[in-house]
Amino acid sequence: MSVRVGKIEFGAADFVVIAGPCAVESERQILRTAEAVAEAGAKMLRGGSFKPRTSPYAFQGLGAEGLKLLARAGRETGLPVVTEVMSDMQVDLVAEYADMLQIGSRSMGNEALLAAAAASGRPILLKRGMSATVEEMAEAAESMRQHGNPRIVLCERGIRTFGTATRNTCDIVAVPLLQRLTGLPVIVDPSHATGVRELISPVARAAVAIGADGLIIEVHPDPDRALSDGAQSLTFQQFRELMGDIQPFAGIWSERRNGVCACV
Amino acid sequence: MSVRVGKIEFGAADFVVIAGPCAVESERQILRTAEAVAEAGAKMLRGGSFKPRTSPYAFQGLGAEGLKLLARAGRETGLPVVTEVMSDMQVDLVAEYADMLQIGSRSMGNEALLAAAAASGRPILLKRGMSATVEEMAEAAESMRQHGNPRIVLCERGIRTFGTATRNTCDIVAVPLLQRLTGLPVIVDPSHATGVRELISPVARAAVAIGADGLIIEVHPDPDRALSDGAQSLTFQQFRELMGDIQPFAGIWSERRNGVCACV
Amino acid sequence: MSVRVGKIEFGAADFVVIAGPCAVESERQILRTAEAVAEAGAKMLRGGSFKPRTSPYAFQGLGAEGLKLLARAGRETGLPVVTEVMSDMQVDLVAEYADMLQIGSRSMGNEALLAAAAASGRPILLKRGMSATVEEMAEAAESMRQHGNPRIVLCERGIRTFGTATRNTCDIVAVPLLQRLTGLPVIVDPSHATGVRELISPVARAAVAIGADGLIIEVHPDPDRALSDGAQSLTFQQFRELMGDIQPFAGIWSERRNGVCACV
Amino acid sequence: MSVRVGKIEFGAADFVVIAGPCAVESERQILRTAEAVAEAGAKMLRGGSFKPRTSPYAFQGLGAEGLKLLARAGRETGLPVVTEVMSDMQVDLVAEYADMLQIGSRSMGNEALLAAAAASGRPILLKRGMSATVEEMAEAAESMRQHGNPRIVLCERGIRTFGTATRNTCDIVAVPLLQRLTGLPVIVDPSHATGVRELISPVARAAVAIGADGLIIEVHPDPDRALSDGAQSLTFQQFRELMGDIQPFAGIWSERRNGVCACV
Repeated sequence: MSVRVGKIEFGAADFVVIAGPCAVESERQILRTAEAVAEAGAKMLRGGSFKPRTSPYAFQGLGAEGLKLLARAGRETGLPVVTEVMSDMQVDLVAEYADMLQIGSRSMGNEALLAAAAASGRPILLKRGMSATVEEMAEAAESMRQHGNPRIVLCERGIRTFGTATRNTCDIVAVPLLQRLTGLPVIVDPSHATGVRELISPVARAAVAIGADGLIIEVHPDPDRALSDGAQSLTFQQFRELMGDIQPFAGIWSERRNGVCACV
Repeated sequence: MSVRVGKIEFGAADFVVIAGPCAVESERQILRTAEAVAEAGAKMLRGGSFKPRTSPYAFQGLGAEGLKLLARAGRETGLPVVTEVMSDMQVDLVAEYADMLQIGSRSMGNEALLAAAAASGRPILLKRGMSATVEEMAEAAESMRQHGNPRIVLCERGIRTFGTATRNTCDIVAVPLLQRLTGLPVIVDPSHATGVRELISPVARAAVAIGADGLIIEVHPDPDRALSDGAQSLTFQQFRELMGDIQPFAGIWSERRNGVCACV
Repeated sequence: MSVRVGKIEFGAADFVVIAGPCAVESERQILRTAEAVAEAGAKMLRGGSFKPRTSPYAFQGLGAEGLKLLARAGRETGLPVVTEVMSDMQVDLVAEYADMLQIGSRSMGNEALLAAAAASGRPILLKRGMSATVEEMAEAAESMRQHGNPRIVLCERGIRTFGTATRNTCDIVAVPLLQRLTGLPVIVDPSHATGVRELISPVARAAVAIGADGLIIEVHPDPDRALSDGAQSLTFQQFRELMGDIQPFAGIWSERRNGVCACV
Repeated sequence: MSVRVGKIEFGAADFVVIAGPCAVESERQILRTAEAVAEAGAKMLRGGSFKPRTSPYAFQGLGAEGLKLLARAGRETGLPVVTEVMSDMQVDLVAEYADMLQIGSRSMGNEALLAAAAASGRPILLKRGMSATVEEMAEAAESMRQHGNPRIVLCERGIRTFGTATRNTCDIVAVPLLQRLTGLPVIVDPSHATGVRELISPVARAAVAIGADGLIIEVHPDPDRALSDGAQSLTFQQFRELMGDIQPFAGIWSERRNGVCACV
């Protein structure tokens, strides 16, 4: 089943790359990023507005203001936007500004949030819990369907294992497994799956080749000064290189899905 | 630091056993269970009222009605009660009836819920996330402290590993690690840690011996007919046997903590 | 660093596919398989001769006889052969017949075997231990170098995690990590990484795309009657389809490595 | 089934504590340690002679000389000795000096070694592989039985999980699981399970309480100068304290097994 978000369609002819910063930090930051990723070929914009941290002195996200800035950046560049909703009490507010609601890894088991997000009617980007099996992820999607919302895109973002060389272990085989198990589109998040800038493009290639329906990538104008996730964010230039790197693989993908040669 | 819940004090002279059903199912079920566990030596009563399930036809818990029944059973037997709160929107309701709020495993990373539960002023029973490190658990507790509530009891309930012989892998060493890292009382949940009735009493003994501050145990009048978690629930008779089984170990525990011999 | 095995060179211009049965079962079986995989484009032949099992009544492999049959099948088809050596006492015998010695997953930590295999002077295919970190795998390779043998090809074959949908979890990111860490060629074993026939071709594509130097694939004339690993073995026809499936991706791989277009 | 090693009997009336250094380093070191642990109540002596390391400049163990020193220390103190055998080629040599052969974690899957060690006729201490399930461990034991040697003691020594606070995660529940599954005695190695000196005594208490048949503990005259595993080795004084710490728990254990009060 394909899932539409504005003019974009996951699970159909398009290979959908979502890009943007971990957190919306300022008007200038999100607008510049939106323009850069749109120009490089991204089809959707991401950006977080709620970033609860343990320390009350840490950056907690811009909240409602961030949502407005994200929506505006989306309008100006023609990109639909996706952002995380972290509590059932936030669903109405977030649904007002976002084209797609993201359920984060730590929320995959939050039934109250799944129900409220499903009820919003917005399409959902459901990220896999850090230690969730593919069966449990399929159940979480099924729960949202039961609550009346079948417009769900799943996202493999790495699981927790004994490995310490990367932030998480990218379970790339979850892509075909989840596609078969649920019939839903599945994308990959190489930024969180690895947490290491140099590994994002290789994992993106593997995701295209295994048949993922898209990618979600963290991009920031100046990763070294990012307020969160800097170490795994790409610069604009690195993002352009990633898009070039995956292009021929995406061409084969596209040819196989659509029966036409996408090569130039 | 010790944590008081009514007349009970975690982390002090008492070894605190919390017992009761996974879910409150009926007035008769919770009252009978409360009486039986109180008589066997339990010092607190547990019971869930919200049991969200994927299928809309499955038992979802009794909701507010369950909270009232639990509170009544607690009053009649003189046992303080603890029950899980699953959403920040439920906190006020649950805090009205419960002496202690439980944050479940799947909610350990739910910052909105941690903040709301902390703000209630009720003491908290914080269960470890299935794949949370001890450091992450200490951070979740710290987050609640930052929100003004230092009355937190931690609960080791098993982690997810490659093992399949039991529901989870009981990380018994987390008990002394968390005690040192946080200064908070730590109890063990052998029911969820193993998921196997025959292993509950052995794990309970190990928990006492390693220095845990208490236990939380699932008990049901008729486990084979329980609406949830039947396979890991003890009968009244099995619970009495468990209390007898741990008694001499708890005696040594008590003697070492309190400097007096608790042996009979 | 590239590693030569006969006319084959791992880590250089060639994408090397090794194929063959889990175990050598008969002259006819290994010869037919060698011919079929050679025709489909495989560049090396695999086949096990020692299959120790708990039950003394189970098939234990053909032993020395299997080595001879494997070597003969290799000669007749022009394919170099690789086979597992399981004990330091077997090294001389196996090195007499095999062009490359395989150290299996369960042996990665067997220092005596690593030393003896290194001393044979034969090139080595070192498989990753089921719960070995990439650093530990690099150390095992380093140990063989210290024993005088730098001709080592590493193989990612899946790690043990909480997942149960597949036999192991394919840690695809280990490919670029190990390449950087060791400078050695790294191949992928999708047969053991997944244990599921339908997932072998998708993982093979991902391996090519992420930059692996080759693949090792289990192929059997009649998988349903295989004496071991039938469920993860491909038929000749399925192996031909796999080779066709990865061909365009391998074309891009080749073009990037060699600076010439390998398409068509 | 109980397993005799000289006058010691695992799985019967005795709670058996094995103690000694990670590696035999010198005559003085092993003799002094043997005397100290015997005086403190240990019933067997441990010490490694083969310590293969990647670097040829690292301490590799004393080899045959170490075996002789260990055997002599055992004789002088009346303690049976156990030491690791790492290769099937070493079995005869080690069996000449040791009362019990240890199969290490990394060797649990080494079928050639299991067969050779079984054939020696010596009782075996089989340590659990780092990522072996309890079923796989039972199969390894069964394999040795099939090779004619039923005198096997199993050892839980921690498994590999996502946790990083300790060297491994002590899977304490494996003790009753393995006892039921195999009918064999099961002991615990808190030194390797935790890798942290302060946690050894707490885990030892938990092991006694859950019903383990014994412990194996690393002790060294001067852990800060130990050639291996210093961070997890106890001083003589710390070992005496551990023995005092577990004594009352072992008293209850003994009373329950033997039907007599072991309290003083």
